[in-house]
Amino acid sequence: MQRQDMLSLLERIKNGELSAEEATQLVERETYQDLGFAKLDHQRMRRLGFPEVVFAEGKAPGHLLDICRAHRQAQPKLLVTRLAADAQEIIAGELPGGHYNATARTLSYGLEQARAQGQVLVLCAGTSDLPVAEEALETARLMDCQVELIADLGVAGMHRLLDHQERIAAARVIVVVAGMEGALPSVVGGLSPVPLIAVPTSVGYGASFGGVAALLAMLNSCAPGVSVVNIDNGFGAGYCAALINNAPAGE
Amino acid sequence: MQRQDMLSLLERIKNGELSAEEATQLVERETYQDLGFAKLDHQRMRRLGFPEVVFAEGKAPGHLLDICRAHRQAQPKLLVTRLAADAQEIIAGELPGGHYNATARTLSYGLEQARAQGQVLVLCAGTSDLPVAEEALETARLMDCQVELIADLGVAGMHRLLDHQERIAAARVIVVVAGMEGALPSVVGGLSPVPLIAVPTSVGYGASFGGVAALLAMLNSCAPGVSVVNIDNGFGAGYCAALINNAPAGE
Amino acid sequence: MQRQDMLSLLERIKNGELSAEEATQLVERETYQDLGFAKLDHQRMRRLGFPEVVFAEGKAPGHLLDICRAHRQAQPKLLVTRLAADAQEIIAGELPGGHYNATARTLSYGLEQARAQGQVLVLCAGTSDLPVAEEALETARLMDCQVELIADLGVAGMHRLLDHQERIAAARVIVVVAGMEGALPSVVGGLSPVPLIAVPTSVGYGASFGGVAALLAMLNSCAPGVSVVNIDNGFGAGYCAALINNAPAGE
Amino acid sequence: MQRQDMLSLLERIKNGELSAEEATQLVERETYQDLGFAKLDHQRMRRLGFPEVVFAEGKAPGHLLDICRAHRQAQPKLLVTRLAADAQEIIAGELPGGHYNATARTLSYGLEQARAQGQVLVLCAGTSDLPVAEEALETARLMDCQVELIADLGVAGMHRLLDHQERIAAARVIVVVAGMEGALPSVVGGLSPVPLIAVPTSVGYGASFGGVAALLAMLNSCAPGVSVVNIDNGFGAGYCAALINNAPAGE
Amino acid sequence: MQRQDMLSLLERIKNGELSAEEATQLVERETYQDLGFAKLDHQRMRRLGFPEVVFAEGKAPGHLLDICRAHRQAQPKLLVTRLAADAQEIIAGELPGGHYNATARTLSYGLEQARAQGQVLVLCAGTSDLPVAEEALETARLMDCQVELIADLGVAGMHRLLDHQERIAAARVIVVVAGMEGALPSVVGGLSPVPLIAVPTSVGYGASFGGVAALLAMLNSCAPGVSVVNIDNGFGAGYCAALINNAPAGE
Amino acid sequence: MQRQDMLSLLERIKNGELSAEEATQLVERETYQDLGFAKLDHQRMRRLGFPEVVFAEGKAPGHLLDICRAHRQAQPKLLVTRLAADAQEIIAGELPGGHYNATARTLSYGLEQARAQGQVLVLCAGTSDLPVAEEALETARLMDCQVELIADLGVAGMHRLLDHQERIAAARVIVVVAGMEGALPSVVGGLSPVPLIAVPTSVGYGASFGGVAALLAMLNSCAPGVSVVNIDNGFGAGYCAALINNAPAGE
Amino acid sequence: MQRQDMLSLLERIKNGELSAEEATQLVERETYQDLGFAKLDHQRMRRLGFPEVVFAEGKAPGHLLDICRAHRQAQPKLLVTRLAADAQEIIAGELPGGHYNATARTLSYGLEQARAQGQVLVLCAGTSDLPVAEEALETARLMDCQVELIADLGVAGMHRLLDHQERIAAARVIVVVAGMEGALPSVVGGLSPVPLIAVPTSVGYGASFGGVAALLAMLNSCAPGVSVVNIDNGFGAGYCAALINNAPAGE
Amino acid sequence: MQRQDMLSLLERIKNGELSAEEATQLVERETYQDLGFAKLDHQRMRRLGFPEVVFAEGKAPGHLLDICRAHRQAQPKLLVTRLAADAQEIIAGELPGGHYNATARTLSYGLEQARAQGQVLVLCAGTSDLPVAEEALETARLMDCQVELIADLGVAGMHRLLDHQERIAAARVIVVVAGMEGALPSVVGGLSPVPLIAVPTSVGYGASFGGVAALLAMLNSCAPGVSVVNIDNGFGAGYCAALINNAPAGE
Repeated sequence: MQRQDMLSLLERIKNGELSAEEATQLVERETYQDLGFAKLDHQRMRRLGFPEVVFAEGKAPGHLLDICRAHRQAQPKLLVTRLAADAQEIIAGELPGGHYNATARTLSYGLEQARAQGQVLVLCAGTSDLPVAEEALETARLMDCQVELIADLGVAGMHRLLDHQERIAAARVIVVVAGMEGALPSVVGGLSPVPLIAVPTSVGYGASFGGVAALLAMLNSCAPGVSVVNIDNGFGAGYCAALINNAPAGE
Repeated sequence: MQRQDMLSLLERIKNGELSAEEATQLVERETYQDLGFAKLDHQRMRRLGFPEVVFAEGKAPGHLLDICRAHRQAQPKLLVTRLAADAQEIIAGELPGGHYNATARTLSYGLEQARAQGQVLVLCAGTSDLPVAEEALETARLMDCQVELIADLGVAGMHRLLDHQERIAAARVIVVVAGMEGALPSVVGGLSPVPLIAVPTSVGYGASFGGVAALLAMLNSCAPGVSVVNIDNGFGAGYCAALINNAPAGE
Repeated sequence: MQRQDMLSLLERIKNGELSAEEATQLVERETYQDLGFAKLDHQRMRRLGFPEVVFAEGKAPGHLLDICRAHRQAQPKLLVTRLAADAQEIIAGELPGGHYNATARTLSYGLEQARAQGQVLVLCAGTSDLPVAEEALETARLMDCQVELIADLGVAGMHRLLDHQERIAAARVIVVVAGMEGALPSVVGGLSPVPLIAVPTSVGYGASFGGVAALLAMLNSCAPGVSVVNIDNGFGAGYCAALINNAPAGE
Repeated sequence: MQRQDMLSLLERIKNGELSAEEATQLVERETYQDLGFAKLDHQRMRRLGFPEVVFAEGKAPGHLLDICRAHRQAQPKLLVTRLAADAQEIIAGELPGGHYNATARTLSYGLEQARAQGQVLVLCAGTSDLPVAEEALETARLMDCQVELIADLGVAGMHRLLDHQERIAAARVIVVVAGMEGALPSVVGGLSPVPLIAVPTSVGYGASFGGVAALLAMLNSCAPGVSVVNIDNGFGAGYCAALINNAPAGE
Repeated sequence: MQRQDMLSLLERIKNGELSAEEATQLVERETYQDLGFAKLDHQRMRRLGFPEVVFAEGKAPGHLLDICRAHRQAQPKLLVTRLAADAQEIIAGELPGGHYNATARTLSYGLEQARAQGQVLVLCAGTSDLPVAEEALETARLMDCQVELIADLGVAGMHRLLDHQERIAAARVIVVVAGMEGALPSVVGGLSPVPLIAVPTSVGYGASFGGVAALLAMLNSCAPGVSVVNIDNGFGAGYCAALINNAPAGE
Repeated sequence: MQRQDMLSLLERIKNGELSAEEATQLVERETYQDLGFAKLDHQRMRRLGFPEVVFAEGKAPGHLLDICRAHRQAQPKLLVTRLAADAQEIIAGELPGGHYNATARTLSYGLEQARAQGQVLVLCAGTSDLPVAEEALETARLMDCQVELIADLGVAGMHRLLDHQERIAAARVIVVVAGMEGALPSVVGGLSPVPLIAVPTSVGYGASFGGVAALLAMLNSCAPGVSVVNIDNGFGAGYCAALINNAPAGE
Repeated sequence: MQRQDMLSLLERIKNGELSAEEATQLVERETYQDLGFAKLDHQRMRRLGFPEVVFAEGKAPGHLLDICRAHRQAQPKLLVTRLAADAQEIIAGELPGGHYNATARTLSYGLEQARAQGQVLVLCAGTSDLPVAEEALETARLMDCQVELIADLGVAGMHRLLDHQERIAAARVIVVVAGMEGALPSVVGGLSPVPLIAVPTSVGYGASFGGVAALLAMLNSCAPGVSVVNIDNGFGAGYCAALINNAPAGE
Repeated sequence: MQRQDMLSLLERIKNGELSAEEATQLVERETYQDLGFAKLDHQRMRRLGFPEVVFAEGKAPGHLLDICRAHRQAQPKLLVTRLAADAQEIIAGELPGGHYNATARTLSYGLEQARAQGQVLVLCAGTSDLPVAEEALETARLMDCQVELIADLGVAGMHRLLDHQERIAAARVIVVVAGMEGALPSVVGGLSPVPLIAVPTSVGYGASFGGVAALLAMLNSCAPGVSVVNIDNGFGAGYCAALINNAPAGE
């Protein structure tokens, strides 16, 4: 609760619309759930439009389960990312009804029919980039987007890309996933007038330096309309894409 | 002209709707203007929705003038970025009617009343980040967006930020410009549900390494919905923001 | 104004100690001064115990003067850092009464007799580190500390350091400024039981990489009780040291 | 024994207060214990106020045990850091009476009731930062400080931070632990007037580069009063914090 | 199919040499094989003169087998690189007739008598560089080159190199493989007038940084005629060398 | 003179074909010219096929003139690179007959009609890459190659590239010059079966890090047949290309 | 065999002291042993004064054994470094008589009574640096030096160092081994007038970056007379030290 | 004065050889000269065998003159490095009798006939490396060494190096100065059995990164007996070489 909210709260007290007791309750309600080792930001759904996402990597199975259970009780949707297959089995046993994508390593609860009209298109340069691309896909899907994925479109065989011009033209926002030299976003960005989120991956060897080569290439893209997320951050790209796709009309 | 276009072209020839001579002309028309030292991509307006932008830094004044003149003749809008004051005078003398923003070092031709309904909000962390923020602003403005800029919102005095919650809530897309530790996008990203484009600037000293500290911070932002452009790339951020703002409704 | 303050404000309204109108005024008072290009955080004196410091580098003289004048009107103390001699003359002409340290490139207003009992001792490894050391000194001095500086104590001639054991023993907090291999903090940290702030400087050449060698050395110091600030950040070190020195007794 | 001590020693010989034989003994007494593979600096307690700390990582169990036993015999307090659970069992079997914190991986001997009046507050940004935060906590605790830890205060959900203003206001020194973009110290530093030690952690992925992103952000913090220790160095932060907290009054 | 091809296609339709139906078929034929998770670029043989190469590292055995089988059906030659021994057994069981080089970790199908007249000579600096050197060798061999390898020619014992002057003089193109300081290409480049491809390897320790030292050395070679490929990229070097060796005469 | 030459020399002495005196003269003749501050390697023409090239940057005008004069006397051809316009005037005044390319900053003596049959094609991504591209061009030209340059072929407007398919198909070797994200070599490498030398340029800003982004992208190119030279090293690329182009036929 | 040797050889042929046949044999004799996968440089003993050293890491046990056996047959001394305990057992079983140092992971054959008069002193900063220090020690010992090692002399407890002044004064050359901030060489270099070889180790964590912090510190040492070898390169330091120690008198 | 000295001092007091008053004087005498801004370490001549060297870069002319004058009064020899020509004139005007080397930018006082018997040989790879090589030369010369310099010995024309085998064989210690790929030390180190100090220079462009490429190459040299100093640190190399050359006989 910030200054503006508070001023209107005070105004309502002044006008007799609200008692001070009621005001105190209002202030205390909008809060978070404290598990001791974690503070679950349930307000996030209302504040940001999507509930807090659980990054599973490095969390103990017990903690992970407690966090997921608390989130499941608080809201219908939940996305867990970087979830290894064995940890997934523990959670699925306790919290049934989720959809696990083994390539993306994501677990989604509350998937519904896409409500948004536009489409998020995910392109990836090589088959090794698929886990990151699928993570972007699952994220946007849980955020109510229509999604589509086209794999293996490396720039050294551009006819494969050009063959999908129709589907590229139909997207409202495009996520491009690539490792190695990370050139695909520049080429796609020069073909399409929609916003493009580029995701560098750690695919490569030697002087790719775990994705740094692709990251730098994407940050320096000569195509306009390209913005970039962290290396291997499929979730972040899918989230950005969904926000863009779901936004109300600009013109 | 790509495979899909060609197939339909061939279909029309097959159906007798088009003679082969007419088809040949169609192919040759969609092209670029060759100045010898440069190939102007006039097709870009039709392909990407906005004409090619001229990056002035490092171009000889004569070349710059030739390029600007050719673009002016081909389309009503033109954006020149990184244009020093003295070079601007040469161009303005030959090509009147532009709007020069001395802080942003941008020259804009064809500015009209904003047609897009949403608003692009540009926030910057310190006064030294203003040139980059203004470049983003001018770019989005020439792309028909309503724009607004709020300066000097460093995270060490957060009440300044919280005081602008209303204007933040009104934006359809937010550009956040920051140097030094680049923390502002994470804080803003936690307060607003709209897409956020983060721009690291080279403002700082010592271990800021010319903007690397801010760039890394933004790529690692714990707030969802944040994507990043190159260091000091106000143009890129403004372009991305305008694409997002001007997109048709998603829901 | 945060949640806790608001709750007590609401409590006072509930108890009839405060009218809603009075409450609204209280909320609006704590604010900042908006110069358009900058938002001066006058609340900082009350919030952090020292007014906002002006970093002069890269600011236009006119802006700099406006900012300094506004700060001078709001509070008795002002510190301007990284202030070149020519810019200093402009400001001094308009705002007399300041103390300019040409080595440190600092301008201080409101210097008083040191009130704090302890002493901030600044040590520097070489004569080229003096500007950074003096900046630390001037900062702590304006923050009411007793200060002392001992220069040219490089570790290759340690008898110079050992000769000042008495003064080292008398300090409540020590700032150690060093470039090149940045070894001095480790040696001093092994001799003294008080908190030590290490400042790497960009003094050096070749593989010092503008202070990176010293920075890394200090971060990896084997002596306990050493913390580090940014390269050449004398101000930051002096500020930290003054906070520590001025703190109320711990035992 | 340094020049100053020697001069007074000589003075006492000159005055007949001390025989040369007694002086020789004095010189030889202040020394270290040589285990062959290690030289234990028992003088450190007297010189720096706290005994030498044992960094367990990479030490053979036998060596580790010998070192711990020798320290235990020389002084009542002992801190062992980076101690894996299995190595802990070996030591605890031989040297009972210690307190092992499995999250922090610290083993403490000689814990007493906190004697210092102030409080060291440790804040951490995410649950994955807990091991580093707990290490800071245990270090300060063994150094006689009152300590408190608040976890999971990421800047993307700032209401969680603002909700703890009271406890922040009560601290004499604050340790802030964060990975990823490392923004939390800047925000906390803008809210509190006490010294702040920032600890970057290696939590993150991709362009976090094992904590480099957080480290650079913290070194470039726009908040005053922030100093930084090495990546994942919870011990160092806790030690600095305790030194600051335990210092005699400055004003 | 690009603009030029299309224009001639249209010309042939115009001239009645081709029906529109036939033209459509022509367009659709030149395409790729879509396995869902991968798009095999069979056009590459015709476009680039050598079929697509399969990089085995990180591919699931099932996918790898599907890809290899599809390539085997489409063309007589196939090169698989970075193929571990166990994965090789699976493929060899299903697709007999290949040649596996366990040092190079390459699997080659369709090896024939060398048809090219010149010779590709591969030199390597140390025995640890052999896997990369052998990968280069196998690649050039499958591309019809006569190949030869001389191992263990480190520059600290140059008489070993000078002893092979005859064979160096006989090569049409030389591949030089070296780790550590990467000096061998400069020395060989100063002795031979033929094109030289340098391959840095990750052999070394400490400040070799996984091959970066050798890579930088090779990029900065003072010998003319040296170009460089990625760290450990024996395949790339062999491919470049074969292209050069197989080119038609220049004079 | 190496082992092999020496053995045959000894053989000829043994056979009486050569007296020992004659042998001694043969050994002493093949040498270099010592100017004191430099040792001119005149043997290089015979050893490597092209005389030593003079890198002008950082050389004093007097030294530069002495070096050029000595080379001019020793052989008909001379290439001077990185030669500023003013230094060029001094040399041209003393040593007439050269060809100065002001964009490339090269001075060439001994240019003749191209004797090699194939063609070296230089492509560059942007107009700012022209100086590097022209340096490559002038180098290959002086080495008897037919050369051609096509400028401004950035991948964000690929129709410009596709429009030059014929000229690309006609080249025997291709040099691709690009800054920023350095993606052009990957795209061209996927279209052409001839050897490709990639040259990263320092064109760009922010996270291009003076050409590092383009360098890494090129080293990680997914197109086969791409090798790389140092940042801005147009000379090196032209030299490699000429060696390849001039080589005798491989098939 | 180089030019000078050849001229004298020719002179002797000319003078009839040597037949051409004898000369040919002389040339062929000085050569290396070719094992196929390796070329053993037996000439090195005569050329450099010490036989080729075998770096065991990454070599297959069979190859390693073949190499060691061949060296053992060629000369009395052999040093094998980075030799794991299990590989050592295989070699010791076949080639008895060696001395294995398990900490240093070195195997030495041909150890004799030290013949050199001076002493190589190895100092190391912490117990974790011992393996590198012992490698230096064993290397110098096999090269006939008197050697001594003093461990655990970190600069945070300098009295331990000062206590060994006598032994430091007795050394002819000093090797200083340190990780973390690498400050020990600067301190020792300021106390002793003999040549000092500094060895950075990878001991440390976080921003030590695997020894980079210590490496940079040592390269930037303010003490004169310090030169540096690669990270963890105890062998290199011991070798340099022995060369220096064994040199004939300079004055 | 350290522990050992003190014990003997006390012994002499105990034995009555020395009064306590005399002892106090002895302690106070060995000290440094305090100029306020600098502490001149006059003890260094006695402690390290050569007086403190003055690094002129970045020192104000007045300070520089004061420092030089004080050193001149204290001892006969003085070396000033990195001294620009104009600053040199000021000093030479006041303090005649020095020898200025304009290439090395060194000023030497007290040059005498070389007393050491061995020879320091300085080799450099290119003419641009001469300033660093000359600095090494002048340093060793002032330290009483016989010195010799051979310039322009790049590894791409190795016959120039091999031609100087005699002079290389005559050296007692060799300094090798090289920029770009820094390969010369490895080649020389493989030819000569004496200690070799390698100096990387910042000569180069692009991916030489100001000398980093050469530095890494030298640290990773496969030749034994090579140690390295900082980039462009000719002084350091000359100093190390002189220490080695002047050492008493080892065998």
